[in-house]
Amino acid sequence: MSVTYNVIKGSASKKLVESSVSAQLESHQVYIETTHSGLCGTDEHYLGADQALGHEGVGIVRQVGQGVKSVKVGQRVGFGYTHEVCANCDNCSQGWDQFCRDQKQYGFHDFDNGTFGSGAVWDEKCVYPIPEGYDSANAAPLMCAGATVWTVLSRYGVSARDRVAVMGIGGLGHLAIKLAAAMGCHVVVLSSSESKRQEAMDYGASEFHVFRSGEKPVDTIAPIKHLLMCGSGGVDYKSIVPLMDTHGTIYPLTVAFEPSPIPLLELVFKGIKIQGSLVASRDTMRSLLEFAARKNITPTIQTYPMNVKGIETAMQDLRDGKVRYRAVLVRE
Amino acid sequence: MSVTYNVIKGSASKKLVESSVSAQLESHQVYIETTHSGLCGTDEHYLGADQALGHEGVGIVRQVGQGVKSVKVGQRVGFGYTHEVCANCDNCSQGWDQFCRDQKQYGFHDFDNGTFGSGAVWDEKCVYPIPEGYDSANAAPLMCAGATVWTVLSRYGVSARDRVAVMGIGGLGHLAIKLAAAMGCHVVVLSSSESKRQEAMDYGASEFHVFRSGEKPVDTIAPIKHLLMCGSGGVDYKSIVPLMDTHGTIYPLTVAFEPSPIPLLELVFKGIKIQGSLVASRDTMRSLLEFAARKNITPTIQTYPMNVKGIETAMQDLRDGKVRYRAVLVRE
Repeated sequence: MSVTYNVIKGSASKKLVESSVSAQLESHQVYIETTHSGLCGTDEHYLGADQALGHEGVGIVRQVGQGVKSVKVGQRVGFGYTHEVCANCDNCSQGWDQFCRDQKQYGFHDFDNGTFGSGAVWDEKCVYPIPEGYDSANAAPLMCAGATVWTVLSRYGVSARDRVAVMGIGGLGHLAIKLAAAMGCHVVVLSSSESKRQEAMDYGASEFHVFRSGEKPVDTIAPIKHLLMCGSGGVDYKSIVPLMDTHGTIYPLTVAFEPSPIPLLELVFKGIKIQGSLVASRDTMRSLLEFAARKNITPTIQTYPMNVKGIETAMQDLRDGKVRYRAVLVRE
Repeated sequence: MSVTYNVIKGSASKKLVESSVSAQLESHQVYIETTHSGLCGTDEHYLGADQALGHEGVGIVRQVGQGVKSVKVGQRVGFGYTHEVCANCDNCSQGWDQFCRDQKQYGFHDFDNGTFGSGAVWDEKCVYPIPEGYDSANAAPLMCAGATVWTVLSRYGVSARDRVAVMGIGGLGHLAIKLAAAMGCHVVVLSSSESKRQEAMDYGASEFHVFRSGEKPVDTIAPIKHLLMCGSGGVDYKSIVPLMDTHGTIYPLTVAFEPSPIPLLELVFKGIKIQGSLVASRDTMRSLLEFAARKNITPTIQTYPMNVKGIETAMQDLRDGKVRYRAVLVRE
């Protein structure tokens, strides 16, 4: 079964280029006509690479391989980071499938498949039916931004009685506020400026504090049990650790290429942990879609046309800090 | 009820000084005649302070306050880090009592009470009966070195099927090997030199690898689920993280005053966490004594006389790396 579609790739000069792909659908694969894609800050990191970009896709299944059982032609599905996974390792059996150490080929390393473009070929195990009535444009950012914060909120013992802090209000952070509030948590927002206070409270925060990493908080903040670091910049952990409650957990969700100096002795004295957490497992993706639909949690989005110019504009807006709070590309 | 005893303190010139203390026993306190004390690397950090040293004590209860119910005169008990604790905070109710954030007065900050000397006044809640037949000299190092590694081994989901690594074989590390082996774990020892191989294997290790932080391991090491950092020096975490299994945990048990550069992105990709862990709660102290007695796990010790000269000699031996593997001071 042969399919042909366009993808939008990075290139050595960091110019976006459109490229046509023809592929044979393998037995376990599906072909998705892409209708929407979120734009994530990490797309920027692959802009100089000759590979298809985008990993927050939603589309409609148009063809399925002969062995495909879990999705049907015509179904609306999400697809994102997880693409080809090893279903048989220890981590999978624990529901942590995207981490398999023997499997280096994640979705976003597939040169010919991404969510920017007209279509994609994906493993049937890694596409997620979108609940009826949940808007495709809203579903797209759940595939990475939502999934990343949902993994933290649903996998590491966060409970409704906890003080859960979100530092940095952007694509991930604003969803973290909405999701944690919907879970009943006491949500504490730490933002570098006063300007996002009203929105944060509207999204369900119980407290808002102006706080910049490296500085002292301007007001007293009661101890925090779970801290999701959702900002894009480097973090001064020496200023963060004192915010934490005994046995609290810090989740660094930002991309930091350089090692970050961490005051380990202070971690030890308070029994604090720093928990690395990547995008969600398949099980977690499904539970997020179910939860978001049931509680009517939607990202706050800005839409752009799904073409080279639209993506360029969205990327520039993201660099300029103008996106409130997730850019979504929509196929015209 | 009045008691008088001697303690051995640090001083501004870093000379050990013996000092007489007279105290009134409060209702909840006990007076212990100290018979043994372990010497811990952290005692060195308080050598310049005018406070009683030592926090790995064993002795005999000689007097009890009028409200004391849990221990009796004549009983042999251990006592160490935990001294005065707040029994009513959230952490206590979870069995994590030593961490109470409102209670700054830990045992080792009590100027007039430590485990070096002839006696000490302690809170009855923080003394631990030593199981019959378990030697006092062996019990002493359990109060801090043993308790520190036992907290990790018993509190964070370490299971018999896990590959548990111990890096650095000293007071903590050698006990970690013995305890983890007795729990049925596959114990992997990482040591900077070949010289401790035989001992490590005798203590129950399944594997021994020469590995120095900052270098590549000389042989291939299969992924590690739990890594106890028991060495005394600084650690190059960039060289450590690749040793870890997906969702593994690193426990920094060493005293690092400067922030340590940690490659957070690599933590994220493998879902690894760095877990701060301090000395044991009361519940954990009791379970360690029970386990050590039941499985006949004893530290490997060198004894010195409990006096200024004996402590000085032991401290110098510790600095020179001559202690195999815990110095214990014995009252003559």
